[in-house]
Amino acid sequence: MPLLLDPAAQDLLFRTARTANTFTAEPVSDAQMRAVYDLVKYGPTAFNTAPLRVVLIRTPEARARLLPHMDEGNRAKTGSAPLVALLATDHEFHEELPRLVPHAPQAKDAYFSERPVRERTAALNGALQAAYFLIGVRAAGLAAGPMTGYDAEGLRKEFLDEDHVPLMVVNIGRPGPDAWFPRLPRLSYDEVVTAV
Amino acid sequence: MPLLLDPAAQDLLFRTARTANTFTAEPVSDAQMRAVYDLVKYGPTAFNTAPLRVVLIRTPEARARLLPHMDEGNRAKTGSAPLVALLATDHEFHEELPRLVPHAPQAKDAYFSERPVRERTAALNGALQAAYFLIGVRAAGLAAGPMTGYDAEGLRKEFLDEDHVPLMVVNIGRPGPDAWFPRLPRLSYDEVVTAV
Repeated sequence: MPLLLDPAAQDLLFRTARTANTFTAEPVSDAQMRAVYDLVKYGPTAFNTAPLRVVLIRTPEARARLLPHMDEGNRAKTGSAPLVALLATDHEFHEELPRLVPHAPQAKDAYFSERPVRERTAALNGALQAAYFLIGVRAAGLAAGPMTGYDAEGLRKEFLDEDHVPLMVVNIGRPGPDAWFPRLPRLSYDEVVTAV
Repeated sequence: MPLLLDPAAQDLLFRTARTANTFTAEPVSDAQMRAVYDLVKYGPTAFNTAPLRVVLIRTPEARARLLPHMDEGNRAKTGSAPLVALLATDHEFHEELPRLVPHAPQAKDAYFSERPVRERTAALNGALQAAYFLIGVRAAGLAAGPMTGYDAEGLRKEFLDEDHVPLMVVNIGRPGPDAWFPRLPRLSYDEVVTAV
């Protein structure tokens, strides 16, 4: 067993964890989401840029505004999940850098003054943080249902502003009946990894 | 304690885990890397697209080819890490889809026939898998040192082909002396998360 992480944690985060498509009605508390964030905020990003932002869709009114922007095949499960999170990137993340990299106050202007650079940086590092977030939801004993099937521009206009772009929408809750499809195949190590 | 994941695992993966800048000489075995992959391959990607590919830089000759493409500030640590992994996305990932989503053989042509669509899909989902990979390295009790400071086109020509794009380079090993800087600040929950 070359992994140090104990088998129960391996199962919780990866092996038996699954993308859920149905959920029980049990609510997901703000305390749970705070605990998730306070774990995954430590995941590394380039230059500590940390461009991920999260909008929790909590009220029935917000849910009603969300659903029309989701692809039709995602609406039923998104409508029934106890909590829905819109993960987005902030393209003005550099405004926070003087606090986030206090040893390099020049970085904000030296590296990130150009919007296209920020957009590329945010796309990669926001996605890393989205993955940490999904792992964190699982660490809380909850199931995540990440989705990218939506009208991104519609979502942006409904919940964000022109400095933010949707990365994914995540249904969160305890898995309900028939919560997942059979596990799909994975590529083998030798198909993915080469050594030189 | 609203997290189900035990505190030792929280520490191993997030809280005490750190981006390492120095490494001991202890080798990283192929068995360790197989164990990492065989854990993180289960991390979710959109439509099971799984576009991440990994090139392990193992030989001194390959290391010598790598270093000139790294930014100067990354060369010393990349030269001394026991193992270096080049993480890349495969923009022809759709060729594997008939095996990866056997219930939807039409997906390859129906959704992914256009290269720009594949590039966008690979950028997001490859980054998710890169994050799972970093978590997996930590799960093996190793430290990761992810970097994006390099000549991407030079790296691509040196180690990949026109269907693959570098995502990041990761130094891997046991942390050495003075392996990390002090932990940088993180944004607070209330700065990152809003509820509607």
